[in-house]
This record gives sequence, structure tokens and C-alpha cells, in this order.
Amino acid sequence: MEEKFIPDIVIGRLPIYLRALQGMLSENRRVTSSQELGERLGISAAQIRKDLSQFGEFGKQGTGYSIEFLADQIGKILKVDRVWDMAVVGAGDIGSAIARYQGFANRGLQVAMVFDNDPEKIGSQIGSFVIEDIKDLKQKIQESGILIAMIATPSLAAQEVAEELVTAGIKAILNYAPINLSVNEHVHVQYIDPVIHLQRMTYYL
Amino acid sequence: MEEKFIPDIVIGRLPIYLRALQGMLSENRRVTSSQELGERLGISAAQIRKDLSQFGEFGKQGTGYSIEFLADQIGKILKVDRVWDMAVVGAGDIGSAIARYQGFANRGLQVAMVFDNDPEKIGSQIGSFVIEDIKDLKQKIQESGILIAMIATPSLAAQEVAEELVTAGIKAILNYAPINLSVNEHVHVQYIDPVIHLQRMTYYL
Repeated sequence: MEEKFIPDIVIGRLPIYLRALQGMLSENRRVTSSQELGERLGISAAQIRKDLSQFGEFGKQGTGYSIEFLADQIGKILKVDRVWDMAVVGAGDIGSAIARYQGFANRGLQVAMVFDNDPEKIGSQIGSFVIEDIKDLKQKIQESGILIAMIATPSLAAQEVAEELVTAGIKAILNYAPINLSVNEHVHVQYIDPVIHLQRMTYYL
Repeated sequence: MEEKFIPDIVIGRLPIYLRALQGMLSENRRVTSSQELGERLGISAAQIRKDLSQFGEFGKQGTGYSIEFLADQIGKILKVDRVWDMAVVGAGDIGSAIARYQGFANRGLQVAMVFDNDPEKIGSQIGSFVIEDIKDLKQKIQESGILIAMIATPSLAAQEVAEELVTAGIKAILNYAPINLSVNEHVHVQYIDPVIHLQRMTYYL
């Protein structure tokens, strides 16, 4: 595929389209339109058509999109037509919930390792995982070639953990700790902090 | 305060500024600049100045911002200078993690009620909360005047729960179930789905 610069904001919408398409597939739907997708997602049909047109022709004027075909194509673009192993650091409430989360299945992602530094947790199980010692993090991640990690540690530990993950070869971090991480610009970082979303809504109440 | 239309994308950045400022306060810092904030957040200094200028004058040219003053002002703008009670629906792994989450403290939010429909869970405790019967959701939310809810149910239940919440008077929903909700346009909805963030990064790997 030729290299073409696509704005990150467009890339950010593709997973939302993909989720909606997979939802339609689970309803045994076959064909959809940019109008219908737009209504489901609160995004204009024109925006959806424009976003998709950056990657090629996925539908015919007047006949709409084959849901399965479009979902496959977006999955390929996002590289989730394979399954990525992920490491979770922090086996508290949030880390445990992530490790047991059913929502990764069929979406190209799976948890492969869980680490903690608490001697009482190390060696015990969360779901099907044995919690590993954070001291072994670098070696285990390097051996496995894992590129994606989720940080679910207390805020105070998150920066140090991030640096260790990057040293171990991690290229993408999803950070649940409510602080901004400072890492090498070649490492991708995304954040999940419920308060950020909630405060965006309290403004309007 | 006079009513002035501020783009939602600007409102969406204010909680991120506030979190960074509160982080600086916890480091006993007094004064910051749009440059420093920008570097911490990966947002340009000009963008930060432009965003803040929508709401007034918060700093003086050359002397920077008083961190405490700016945090207070943003807190007022976002209406988190008070504490909002929230309801959590779904007491599985994610709902339980939210109910016990320490990160709401001092950020204008607190969990006040947790609901589930599982007879084995109803009446048992998560942290300091007794799990309540979802059958009582409408009445309890109406009586308490709660406006904010978090949905942490399985996907299949989320739309129905959302409709019940809206009927009960909820005006803002943070949805952890990986589906798009369809609700009255006067109700604010935000989403947390780790897969959306992760797939946005796999594109680059």
C-alpha cells in the first residue's frame, strides 16, 4: 500500500465505524449507507464518505456499502485483521477488570500478560492469567515481542512504568492512570480517564 | 455569566488542562505558562492561550498563570467547583472498579449509587456501597436528583438501561458498554471503550 498521510483524527474515527459495522453484522445486516452509519454515530454522512474515500472506493453510489466488506477493509487498514498480544501493568481493580474484559475478542486484541509489584498478588490468578513480577517485565516483553501495553498503576508509578515499557520495546501505551506521560515521540500514547469525559459533560448541566 | 457559544472541542480540552494544573499543584508549583502546559500535554501553547481566552483573562503577558487561580477558574467553568453525585449501573468487573475508583476525589465527582439486576449481587457490598436492585433505579434516581450515570452493563442491556436512565432524569451518561447509544439529543453521552483507543494505535504499528 502506498504511503499517504492520513490525519490522525480520521484514523481515530475508523475504530468507531468498525464497531458500528460489527454491531450491524451481529444483527445479521448485510448492507448499510453513510446516512445510516452517520445517524447511528452522530457523525455526518458526508464526513464518513470523506473519511473512507481517503483509503479507496468501498461502496457504489446508490447501492451503499457491503457491511462485511467494509468491516474487513477497515480491519485491514487498522491492522486488526490479526490478533495483537498486550501486557497489562497493575493488577488492581482496573487492571483486573481489563485482564478479564470480554470486549477484546474479535477486535484484534488480547491480553497476554499481567504484571504487578505486590508480593501478595504476584503468582496469584486473574481469570486465566498468573500475575507476574514487574521485575521480569522487561525480559518477558522483549522475549514475547509484545508491542502494546496498558498501564493501570497508581498515578505516582505510571511515568516510571511507561519508561520501562518503552525500554522493553513497547510502541503503544493505553494509560489508565490520570496523568500525562512523557515518552519518546515514536511511542503512541492514548489515555482513558473517566473524569475527563465526565467533566466535559458537567459543563453543560 | 453571559451565554457565549464555545465549541465542544474546546470544552473537551479544559478537563485536560485542569488535570495538568492539579498535577502541578500537587508538586507544590505556583506559576506556569502556556508553553509549559503545552509541552506537558502535547498541545501547542497558542492553542492553549486561544482556548483560555474564550473565557476571559487568566494570566498576564510575561508573568504566566497562577496555577491555583487558573485551576479554580477552569473548575468553575466546568462546574466541578461542587461535587456531583453519580449512579453506576452494572456491578461487574468494570462497574465495581468504577465504584471503588479513587480518582474522582477532588475532581468534582463521586459515586453515590450502584445498581445491578443480579439477585446474587443485589444487597451485597462494593466498597462502601450496597448494590441496589435495578428495579428501583428510576425511583432512587428521581428522589436523589442525580443527573449523571455510568453504564457498565453488557452491550445487549446498555440501550435499554440508557432509556430508563433518561426517563429517570439523567442528563449525562458515560457509557462503558461498547455500543453507540441512541438517546434524546438533550442528553450528553460520552464513551469509554479501550478498543477504540487501541485500534487507533495499531494503525501505526
